[in-house]
Amino acid sequence: MSGSASRGLARVLRQTKRPSIPRSQARQCQPLRPLFEPVRNFSGTARQREDTGEPHRNVKYTTDMYPTLKRDPRFSEITPEHVQFFKSALGDDAAVIDGVSSDASDDLEAFNTDWMRKYRGHTKLVLRPKSTEEVSKVLKYCNDNKLAVVPQGGNSGLVGGSVPVFDEIVISLSRMNKIRSFDDISGILVVDGGVILEVADNYLAEQNHLFPLDLGAKGSAQIGGNVATNAGGLRLLRYGSLHGNVLGIEAVLPDGTIVDDLGTLRKNNTGYDIKQLFIGGEGTIGIITGVSVYCPQRSKAVNVAYFGLPSFEHVQKAYKEAKVQLGEILSAFELMDARSQGFVHQVTGNKRPLDGDHPFYCLIETSGSNTEHDSEKLEKFLEYVMSEEIVSDGVLAQDETQAKSLWAWREGITEAIGHFGGTYKYDLSIPIQELYQLVEDTRDRLDSKGLVGDDDSFPAIAVVGYGHMGDSNLHLNVPVRKYTKEVEEAIEPWVYEWIQKRRGSISAEHGLGIAKKKYIGYSRSETMLKLMKQIKELYDPNGIMNPYKYI
Amino acid sequence: MSGSASRGLARVLRQTKRPSIPRSQARQCQPLRPLFEPVRNFSGTARQREDTGEPHRNVKYTTDMYPTLKRDPRFSEITPEHVQFFKSALGDDAAVIDGVSSDASDDLEAFNTDWMRKYRGHTKLVLRPKSTEEVSKVLKYCNDNKLAVVPQGGNSGLVGGSVPVFDEIVISLSRMNKIRSFDDISGILVVDGGVILEVADNYLAEQNHLFPLDLGAKGSAQIGGNVATNAGGLRLLRYGSLHGNVLGIEAVLPDGTIVDDLGTLRKNNTGYDIKQLFIGGEGTIGIITGVSVYCPQRSKAVNVAYFGLPSFEHVQKAYKEAKVQLGEILSAFELMDARSQGFVHQVTGNKRPLDGDHPFYCLIETSGSNTEHDSEKLEKFLEYVMSEEIVSDGVLAQDETQAKSLWAWREGITEAIGHFGGTYKYDLSIPIQELYQLVEDTRDRLDSKGLVGDDDSFPAIAVVGYGHMGDSNLHLNVPVRKYTKEVEEAIEPWVYEWIQKRRGSISAEHGLGIAKKKYIGYSRSETMLKLMKQIKELYDPNGIMNPYKYI
Repeated sequence: MSGSASRGLARVLRQTKRPSIPRSQARQCQPLRPLFEPVRNFSGTARQREDTGEPHRNVKYTTDMYPTLKRDPRFSEITPEHVQFFKSALGDDAAVIDGVSSDASDDLEAFNTDWMRKYRGHTKLVLRPKSTEEVSKVLKYCNDNKLAVVPQGGNSGLVGGSVPVFDEIVISLSRMNKIRSFDDISGILVVDGGVILEVADNYLAEQNHLFPLDLGAKGSAQIGGNVATNAGGLRLLRYGSLHGNVLGIEAVLPDGTIVDDLGTLRKNNTGYDIKQLFIGGEGTIGIITGVSVYCPQRSKAVNVAYFGLPSFEHVQKAYKEAKVQLGEILSAFELMDARSQGFVHQVTGNKRPLDGDHPFYCLIETSGSNTEHDSEKLEKFLEYVMSEEIVSDGVLAQDETQAKSLWAWREGITEAIGHFGGTYKYDLSIPIQELYQLVEDTRDRLDSKGLVGDDDSFPAIAVVGYGHMGDSNLHLNVPVRKYTKEVEEAIEPWVYEWIQKRRGSISAEHGLGIAKKKYIGYSRSETMLKLMKQIKELYDPNGIMNPYKYI
Repeated sequence: MSGSASRGLARVLRQTKRPSIPRSQARQCQPLRPLFEPVRNFSGTARQREDTGEPHRNVKYTTDMYPTLKRDPRFSEITPEHVQFFKSALGDDAAVIDGVSSDASDDLEAFNTDWMRKYRGHTKLVLRPKSTEEVSKVLKYCNDNKLAVVPQGGNSGLVGGSVPVFDEIVISLSRMNKIRSFDDISGILVVDGGVILEVADNYLAEQNHLFPLDLGAKGSAQIGGNVATNAGGLRLLRYGSLHGNVLGIEAVLPDGTIVDDLGTLRKNNTGYDIKQLFIGGEGTIGIITGVSVYCPQRSKAVNVAYFGLPSFEHVQKAYKEAKVQLGEILSAFELMDARSQGFVHQVTGNKRPLDGDHPFYCLIETSGSNTEHDSEKLEKFLEYVMSEEIVSDGVLAQDETQAKSLWAWREGITEAIGHFGGTYKYDLSIPIQELYQLVEDTRDRLDSKGLVGDDDSFPAIAVVGYGHMGDSNLHLNVPVRKYTKEVEEAIEPWVYEWIQKRRGSISAEHGLGIAKKKYIGYSRSETMLKLMKQIKELYDPNGIMNPYKYI
């Protein structure tokens, strides 16, 4: 973090005709109080999680929320004989959490319930294999005996994909948590599927490299799960998607076949790139047990700035200019609307980074190899966007702590919004010019139906938009005092029709899971669905892998 | 291109104890004579190509080179009735080159022969559809009538994948050459499959963007073909692979189905990423008719430097240092050994960029948004690698012409080597530490068998190594006076065994085609081959797509 950049901001403010933000603030971003400890920032597995809030048993069963969903009669019921097999195959008491032949219902609930406490299954059995061979053994047995399964990583997904619906067996990867190798010349890392993202990134930091994916749930999310859900996150703008960065995958198919595609080469043009089907396959054709990833050099210099802007047109201008002027060092360009920042303020009580109210806020991060150069580029950019009145006001973090505090205004939104009850969450890709229009249209729609307002008589509290501007990825959130049919029916399928008209995606980075399964037709043609079903049929003819979800 | 960087190099040379390279050269890279006009740098289609060299009919038929290969009796012979259908379906005289019912043998030869003049087929029919619907119509007809086909783009491949072996019908994409759309905020380009890479890149240059792929054959290679072969090329180090950058594909399956997966979103997690199978599928499951690509901002500043180094250990040190010091602006790190540069010099007669002989040469390119910053980083890097004696000598281009001249010492290798007769070419991925060991081992092996030497009694002229250091991708070339069984048997399968032991790839970026088909087992397991064959069977049950090749 550079001092000169911050001085630069102060200089910008003197030169421009904008009303200055207070000098003290421009020179030094207020040492903000730390955000509340995020619920998801625990380490370890679902098992180790300490529940401080609502008990799992207060969470509604998914089967109650989706009453038309029926258990697939093709699947066998789990018997004590099955459990006996798993115990002998996995050979370790801790490997099997058994609610079939013994009582382990409390232990099971953490695996049955997703972190949002929105989905809850009925499993009576959790298997925790320690090796790829063990995964192969149990999966083959399940397939032979028509036992349905749900692969589970850090259980930090947002669409209910990692918890059972009925009595599917949970196969937890949490004990497959070894970093297998790292080469610091090529930057190639090989890990078990159950390695926690933050653990890998911290390990890489020691070697001056970084994991090319970063997201709010990194303290619990597992890399195998990240790959299975093709997680996007905060670094995609700079480092690209997992389809490009994942160099190899080891996975187990339902019939026990070990897909040994764990190459460590940046280039390997020898046949179809089968591993790509597992990236974003959401555990429906196999379980990812190993991943090889290309990891870039960690940047020595990281700068974070936070702006207020008068309109979404101004946000677009700022983004276009950032691409030109910051070019190769631009590592994040995040969008937050006024309401989203209001919720973070309300819940955390933290002092706002900027005085006054602005309709839009952006967070820009740069990462580069030379602090002075980066600061100079950022100064020049700031000078430009302030003198052109593209940006109304801004602050620049002066050290890592301040950078983290600024990031908390972006990363803390989800939790702040969730503080008041439920949230209708939509993760959408929209052509960039129309990105924010959806928030306004949704607000108008709920308003015209009398469904959103400040006092407790309205079911919805607000309509909030934020997201990854650089990826054209909007998070549309509607926090509600309680879930009601009226609000749901006002939003769905209207929001998906809105997206379909603009050829957007109804799930940009969260995946389909159970939440988006029935809406895929708004983003994919009949032809594509047919081709996807062929793939599912090819790899999982018995349909045992993560049933009731995805396509 | 910056002047200060070049002055910087001069300064470096004054500060270090290395014997200075002549000041005149350090200050100004010699205005090198242009390289001979590369054969592949023609524009347009195979049809338009003017043949200046050896006539096609002197090229040996592939069927003579591979006498064990038999025509698959499942395929129908083409009849005048078939031709009649195609003429009516494509509706335009120029759309069908007909050697079945009329004599078009001269016109057909350009489509039968690959650009290396190494592979030659027996086709009597070339179809040149103008739309995706036309491709669908002809492919469905071929599938229904068991007529085998070969999709052909710019026909610039290196493994014989784009020409027929027997009488497969060539489906040329060259008339599908429209740029469909470009959005300059998101950087997303949509093109027909037959758009020539250089045409697209020139178009993007006008909009300050660049195509994330660059390669020597860009003047003829088509984007559909690039994607079908998952071309790697010169920009992969910086911008990543096509698996990450291709956002959407439109393709036609053998049964005529149009795969409408031509999305323009950076994020879209709605189902299996089917399009990935076409990337690197080498036209064996369908024909790519449209591509959507994420294109980054074009860098304002480009610097190119050329070094001599004393050993491969020094090359590794220089690469590691370049990653740290040049970080986000490093856009190429190319390796060339002494012999490769000797051949370019011998064939072109151009003055060498550096005095004296060096065992290794590297070309470094930086691309960034700020000329001064980039030059300063490069200067600092040069200062360091020269003072530490990692690099023996170097020059820096001062303008675009000089940059192109330096690049010609890298890009001209393939053609210079091919000047003396044939070349055994291997395109390999190898763990970076052992990358050059293979060249030395091959040299020792041919030497010990008395197969390589300077005078005409030896079949092989030399053993040459060069490639993309940053991607761990070596091009091993053995130029020969004539192809002999002895040389071939000395190299193969020994070279593939060498690669297998190190878990490398027998085809890093060139693909399999017909040349590498039988060696895939050295880079892929039985399990992977089985999975690949399932995919082929799924999409092309009649096996009509590009037969006799790939897996």
